[in-house]
Amino acid sequence: MHTMAVIGTGLIGTSVALAATGQGVSVYLSDRNRAAARTAAALGAGRAEDPPEPVDLAVLAVPPSRIAEALIAAQERGLARVYTDVASVKAGPERAVLARAPEPSRYVGGHPLAGRERSGPLAARAELFRGRPWALTPHWLTSRAALDRGLELAELCGAAPVVMRSREHDEVVALTSHVPHLLASVMAARLRDGPAGVPLLAGQGLRDVTRIAAGDPRLWSDILRSNAAAMAGVVRELRADLSRVAAALDLLAEEDVLAEDDYGGHDQGVRTLEDLLARGVAGLAGLPRPGAGPPVAEAGLRILVPDRPGELARLLGAVAALGIAVDDVAVEAVEAVEAAEATGLRVRVPVPMADAERIGAKLGADGWDRAPAESVPAG
Amino acid sequence: MHTMAVIGTGLIGTSVALAATGQGVSVYLSDRNRAAARTAAALGAGRAEDPPEPVDLAVLAVPPSRIAEALIAAQERGLARVYTDVASVKAGPERAVLARAPEPSRYVGGHPLAGRERSGPLAARAELFRGRPWALTPHWLTSRAALDRGLELAELCGAAPVVMRSREHDEVVALTSHVPHLLASVMAARLRDGPAGVPLLAGQGLRDVTRIAAGDPRLWSDILRSNAAAMAGVVRELRADLSRVAAALDLLAEEDVLAEDDYGGHDQGVRTLEDLLARGVAGLAGLPRPGAGPPVAEAGLRILVPDRPGELARLLGAVAALGIAVDDVAVEAVEAVEAAEATGLRVRVPVPMADAERIGAKLGADGWDRAPAESVPAG
Repeated sequence: MHTMAVIGTGLIGTSVALAATGQGVSVYLSDRNRAAARTAAALGAGRAEDPPEPVDLAVLAVPPSRIAEALIAAQERGLARVYTDVASVKAGPERAVLARAPEPSRYVGGHPLAGRERSGPLAARAELFRGRPWALTPHWLTSRAALDRGLELAELCGAAPVVMRSREHDEVVALTSHVPHLLASVMAARLRDGPAGVPLLAGQGLRDVTRIAAGDPRLWSDILRSNAAAMAGVVRELRADLSRVAAALDLLAEEDVLAEDDYGGHDQGVRTLEDLLARGVAGLAGLPRPGAGPPVAEAGLRILVPDRPGELARLLGAVAALGIAVDDVAVEAVEAVEAAEATGLRVRVPVPMADAERIGAKLGADGWDRAPAESVPAG
Repeated sequence: MHTMAVIGTGLIGTSVALAATGQGVSVYLSDRNRAAARTAAALGAGRAEDPPEPVDLAVLAVPPSRIAEALIAAQERGLARVYTDVASVKAGPERAVLARAPEPSRYVGGHPLAGRERSGPLAARAELFRGRPWALTPHWLTSRAALDRGLELAELCGAAPVVMRSREHDEVVALTSHVPHLLASVMAARLRDGPAGVPLLAGQGLRDVTRIAAGDPRLWSDILRSNAAAMAGVVRELRADLSRVAAALDLLAEEDVLAEDDYGGHDQGVRTLEDLLARGVAGLAGLPRPGAGPPVAEAGLRILVPDRPGELARLLGAVAALGIAVDDVAVEAVEAVEAAEATGLRVRVPVPMADAERIGAKLGADGWDRAPAESVPAG
């Protein structure tokens, strides 16, 4: 790919342009707001002018509701050989493209899963997409050439392409992105009318839950309404869960008033809360850990830690010094040992199988009392 | 403070004990699970034994529903001169203490606003509370000595004490901690039954929204039911917001089916979404920025950036080199300037008033064309 046009120089469009420029592609920038295109150019994202001849790829970086009109206008003036977009909703724009665009075969839907709370060209970063998924949603008329250019763009930006159908994409992102945004917004909206102490006791948990609610309301309104059908079902399920929780809380609040020291009752309310919390933990278990590679076979080193203050800290320090982050070391079982000859704690330290021998030998040489390594199924 | 007892050596209790030991306090540790107390001791958090005489302060680090029983048992054996706790619910335990404890005047409620998703003594950190708020909730019988020890504990852990009434505390944390936890859990619970592509497209936004749902379900069930009364009202308001959103999404999904290319209509559904998103942004505006000090008076440096590719990136680089993080620089207005003698972008860079002259002079010396600094009201 030698030449590219980017239509819409907001956060995503400008970041794509910066990444492409950085890889030697000649990029032509445009935006309804001419100052935004010139800002992107001044940032080094390309030239704020029309290309002299059709480019290899045009990237439509406009909100979901404007994809079809932007594609039609671009195809009518012959802007590019093939086209993609970066909107986070795919089925609606695809239907509109199939119904109305002059050459739908030259279009493949795209959606890089990356963003920031800040918007506009000044927030753009060439590395925004590095290591992130980039969904591509070819429709039944999409040409091989269009799909290939979409794949090339994702790879050029350092992202990992994921090919799926537009409807499947929209159902997934309703759950992974759009409904979470709504929840962050309903939670953040409550803070406005909260008691005076809210800013005093706001911590990291609240900040994390509400962070994405800071996104541009106009763009997000466009995204949410463009994916209304896929979101509606999820929102109804959430509301049903919240109704059950509200009923449980009412029961528990009443119990609290009637017998204020009787916290121990495991009634219906408690079961509802425990069930929800456990389902939440189970839901998280299905998400990949950030930065985690494929599961690694582990060996469990078993170390006897003498029962003296600070000895366990000393062991964890020794393990850390061997290149294992202490936060990653899940010490799985700590048992009090009361043998005749020694009292202490038996600690089980899972380490990657490949490093087990080296780490075990080093710990043994340092005087730690250890049992032979035991293999653990890959997690 | 010379001596301290910590009852309950989970994440919070062990972290308090590590911080106190680090400040030279003699700490005595106990836990219903004796291996947990010995693990904390082996980490260097103190001694897993009973103190030989009453300690200066006992810290009850047990779930909210067990505060009163733990205090009664400790006071009956004369464990300490004064008592506090670290539970995240304060009104219910306080009522139980006032009704049943032998010496309620020797107790002050406490709640450090800090935590991790990992639990147990092995997750503990001496610095867990550094810079975090630490609520203290004296009741009408709390002695001056008890409150002073609570303040001393917070300061010893590097936290910022905040004194408030127990009921006010519970209303605030319902909004800032307990309801966010519930929302994170209902969202995470939905992931379990989601489409197969969920793990492929899960990004940082989803991870942030759901992160706290990984907390220990048994502890959180105890916390949530202990604050049921304060939470119930907030959950009802959230459910009402979600009902409005669900109705709006239904409207928009229907419109989508009836006229699939008519995304432009600004009907009731769009207004509902836009209103919610805007309220979310407004709610976040009331939260302190993490690590932010008091508002600083700013001056707006105005720089004319020549209309050549990469010039704005060069300016931002120059500003960064002067010690201002580019992400903190809000370039507030970028205007295209088309004067006879020059075309370019007018960029307004707010900098702290105290640094304005130095930064302006340096940029001027580097050849940047700038107007005089203009003062901006403190944000």
